[in-house]
Amino acid sequence: MTVHESHQRHHLAGSRPDIRVPFTRVNLTNGDTFDRYATEGPGSDPAVGLPPLRATWIAERRDTEEYDGREAQLIDDGKAALRRGAVREEWQGTKRRPLRSLPGQRVTQMAYARAGLVTPEMEFVAIREGCDVELVRSEVAAGRAIIPNNVNHPESEPMIIGRTFLVKVNANIGNSAVTSSIAEEVDKLTWAITWGTDTVMDLSTGDDIHTTREWIIRNSPVPIGTVPIYQALEKVNGEADKLTWEVFRDTVIEQCEQGVDYMTIHAGVLLRYVPLTANRVTGIVSRGGSIMAGWCLAHHEENFLYTHFDELCEIFAQYDVSFSLGDGLRPGSTADANDEAQLSELRTLAELTKRAWEFDVQVMVEGPGHVPLNLVEENVVLQQDWCHGAPFYTLGPLVTDIAPGYDHITSAIGAATIAMHGTAMLCYVTPKEHLGLPNRDDVKTGVITYKLSAHAADVAKGHPRARDWDDALSKARFEFRWKDQFALSLDPHTAESFHDETLPAENAKTAHFCSMCGPKFCSMRISQDVRERFAEKSEEFLELGGSVYVEEALTRS
Amino acid sequence: MTVHESHQRHHLAGSRPDIRVPFTRVNLTNGDTFDRYATEGPGSDPAVGLPPLRATWIAERRDTEEYDGREAQLIDDGKAALRRGAVREEWQGTKRRPLRSLPGQRVTQMAYARAGLVTPEMEFVAIREGCDVELVRSEVAAGRAIIPNNVNHPESEPMIIGRTFLVKVNANIGNSAVTSSIAEEVDKLTWAITWGTDTVMDLSTGDDIHTTREWIIRNSPVPIGTVPIYQALEKVNGEADKLTWEVFRDTVIEQCEQGVDYMTIHAGVLLRYVPLTANRVTGIVSRGGSIMAGWCLAHHEENFLYTHFDELCEIFAQYDVSFSLGDGLRPGSTADANDEAQLSELRTLAELTKRAWEFDVQVMVEGPGHVPLNLVEENVVLQQDWCHGAPFYTLGPLVTDIAPGYDHITSAIGAATIAMHGTAMLCYVTPKEHLGLPNRDDVKTGVITYKLSAHAADVAKGHPRARDWDDALSKARFEFRWKDQFALSLDPHTAESFHDETLPAENAKTAHFCSMCGPKFCSMRISQDVRERFAEKSEEFLELGGSVYVEEALTRS
Repeated sequence: MTVHESHQRHHLAGSRPDIRVPFTRVNLTNGDTFDRYATEGPGSDPAVGLPPLRATWIAERRDTEEYDGREAQLIDDGKAALRRGAVREEWQGTKRRPLRSLPGQRVTQMAYARAGLVTPEMEFVAIREGCDVELVRSEVAAGRAIIPNNVNHPESEPMIIGRTFLVKVNANIGNSAVTSSIAEEVDKLTWAITWGTDTVMDLSTGDDIHTTREWIIRNSPVPIGTVPIYQALEKVNGEADKLTWEVFRDTVIEQCEQGVDYMTIHAGVLLRYVPLTANRVTGIVSRGGSIMAGWCLAHHEENFLYTHFDELCEIFAQYDVSFSLGDGLRPGSTADANDEAQLSELRTLAELTKRAWEFDVQVMVEGPGHVPLNLVEENVVLQQDWCHGAPFYTLGPLVTDIAPGYDHITSAIGAATIAMHGTAMLCYVTPKEHLGLPNRDDVKTGVITYKLSAHAADVAKGHPRARDWDDALSKARFEFRWKDQFALSLDPHTAESFHDETLPAENAKTAHFCSMCGPKFCSMRISQDVRERFAEKSEEFLELGGSVYVEEALTRS
Repeated sequence: MTVHESHQRHHLAGSRPDIRVPFTRVNLTNGDTFDRYATEGPGSDPAVGLPPLRATWIAERRDTEEYDGREAQLIDDGKAALRRGAVREEWQGTKRRPLRSLPGQRVTQMAYARAGLVTPEMEFVAIREGCDVELVRSEVAAGRAIIPNNVNHPESEPMIIGRTFLVKVNANIGNSAVTSSIAEEVDKLTWAITWGTDTVMDLSTGDDIHTTREWIIRNSPVPIGTVPIYQALEKVNGEADKLTWEVFRDTVIEQCEQGVDYMTIHAGVLLRYVPLTANRVTGIVSRGGSIMAGWCLAHHEENFLYTHFDELCEIFAQYDVSFSLGDGLRPGSTADANDEAQLSELRTLAELTKRAWEFDVQVMVEGPGHVPLNLVEENVVLQQDWCHGAPFYTLGPLVTDIAPGYDHITSAIGAATIAMHGTAMLCYVTPKEHLGLPNRDDVKTGVITYKLSAHAADVAKGHPRARDWDDALSKARFEFRWKDQFALSLDPHTAESFHDETLPAENAKTAHFCSMCGPKFCSMRISQDVRERFAEKSEEFLELGGSVYVEEALTRS
């Protein structure tokens, strides 16, 4: 679907027929068009899933093999989830056989980039971003950008996360034990990408984890991220102390085979950092972080995600799964921001980034959380410095704690700021943050709020194509092309309905005023009159303007 | 009214019985209390108005006199507004006689501060801000802060606007020719101050301007600002070319006598700056700016607000009306930000600031508008430098143009940032910006959004009492005191209703989880368990923590 009647799906062709990059073309009433980056994909029938866009590209590389998949029964988790997942696969008519790399091969975009290869994925990304493909290749090779593309998620349209490129947005969906069904989650996925989210994280917990994820991945044109410790914990009936590397490893492989594109791994929560959280106002607020801290403490052993990190790298390299190195010790209140616990973990994440790169595995690093506005920049400066430019992926940050119900806004302030200073992807926060699970409306509000924050950062960073959008909309506004102003908006329906609340008549869509100031006080109308007068008296004015300009040029320092 | 059942009106006493400074005391379930700055005043019966809190203070100074008021019939504007205003005054039983200074006296807070006098208004402000009264006096004397307090608005509770103090928020209300009634506007006033706006601007246009303003001022415990050119334009039937200094002067005096506390005066829109807007994307977007630009152009004369500025100063000094020097050439799109038109006008506003100070008249300077995030700081740095520290009062700024319907958010990003860098007061933007007149819900959303932005700036600036609020709320959150978390919120009702959407049961208000993560995955609960384990093994941990701390101290640069 497209969000507005003036919007049309449009494709830009690449060097081969199967590289067709989607854009949304906005048709304006003055005959102009404006092309917008589109994430929503070709649309799918949930029972069938999306076509495997990248299947040929993956197959052509001849570095993967099909296999039967892991032996799920090795770990009998006693959950309906796996059984129902299997049932669904049978109901699809084919039990899908997963891909993995041939022995000795690393099938990651980073490995290709380092080898100097330009993949169709890289070309797709370059067309989307409007940049040279060599920039894409070199940034991926250097680790400064990632293209999260599991070989088992061929339905995805390649996208890139890195500070050189457009700032991206992630939307979290997923049910919890308390509420929400699978159908609702797939609907939230479709809804979130309709409004422009660039990736989606499925944070489901509860019995239906496997099946929910299967439906989401098969219907997702955007990369899917997860936090596998959630499912691992389900497999040990919620008893964190019973978690083992073996259960976790099995879960990771299960998710690699399904097609998860990036996974949050809380490998930086080291035993010796846990005491650093003791005097915090809000302790440990990352679910994964608190689980691993509890485990370390119960066993008085080092975090098994840290001790087995190289094995994880070997697994990820077989499927091209990207690390999202979790910040399990991120601050959960402004009081705890940039403290020793947080920064100690960041140093460990920097070490792990380098280790993953040794395996050609793509990495991004997660960041906070809750941070006073004056400390926001420091977060990304330190992360970029310590982690050698690996993409930063932050949650907000929220710049104050006093506005539950409005935390999409408290966090949008931090998000735009941290993105301007170099964060590559922003995890959205919805109005329900701290209060409950987001519903459909919250997902939309969260995505739109983060799209505007990301775009504000693109404009501030001087991204070559960013301000064109602002200019197109502002021009439509100044020329009273109301319909174009709506069509160019991030959310055309809301813009139009707000306008129509007071002036619903069709002819108000071309009127030279709105209800805000009324006809007599419309500054834009008066300003246009001024401009016309200016044209009439242009000689007189050029003279004035000229002399003023010189004067100002002399007095400005 | 107070906004929540846990909130109680409370007063702090000053040095004399009639200095009683209101606070909102939040009663927490753990027996603690938290005091919040309160703006809503004692509440009024609209037909009667508020008691004249400051009447004694003003009278005691013996520097004012009552008089009959200007001869309104000198300018027969043929509007129902004035007549209806007169009728209302009769209906009140007393025709109120306005105050003005005795000949040769300047009755401004700045004049008193410069003379070394500490007024009850200054003491009231110092108690509200929790600072030394000498700081208030010296900042007002230096022009770095203002206390907008017309002697004809004795109902107002003194407040201060300056970068040293808490960041303030203004809400615009007012009807336009298209919609809205007087009763609605008074209701919006009460509604806006209930949610914490620090000042209100009445931007009404149309026939009922005088009467609407009368009702608003008599019921307002916060300073009221206006843009008198709007009413002056009504007096010449909307024909900007017919505006004269005489009509404007009469309008200003009318509003001085009613009790307007600060007025936006677009005296910096000089004839020679108008051509600088010719190539802008959105021309002139200030209503007052476009009116004055049109006038200058039609007459090919200098702006009469500039040429008669000293006379304005003399008038303002008689009533203690503060200038809000309007930025008539502010950018209306990110494309036009920080351009020569804007900066030229700012230099003129700097010149006018000094001139006003020669008359002991208080001044703040208005700022943009629409500014990309990377250019926001420059605005306040230049303004503070050029205008000798006079308070800056900005509209947002919006950091992108692409999100009509969400411009409270695009502008909150700019607002928090510019306030962190020194802006003293933020003019709110509602979701209806660019689309229509805000309704009651929009006013609330706008005020809450700006209160959180202002507070985020206070926290970022390290205001001595700002972060206490965040800490109180975060502590309640970590301890699962849900009711306290709601009560401490900027908007308790929204926070509670969002929580209750999924967990309405009363016992969920003490539950150690919410629907966001469910009981098993609540990081705060797990973190508390970790903390308990930590307590059990504290010796072991102190050892660990201690050694880690030393190690980190050595390795951090």
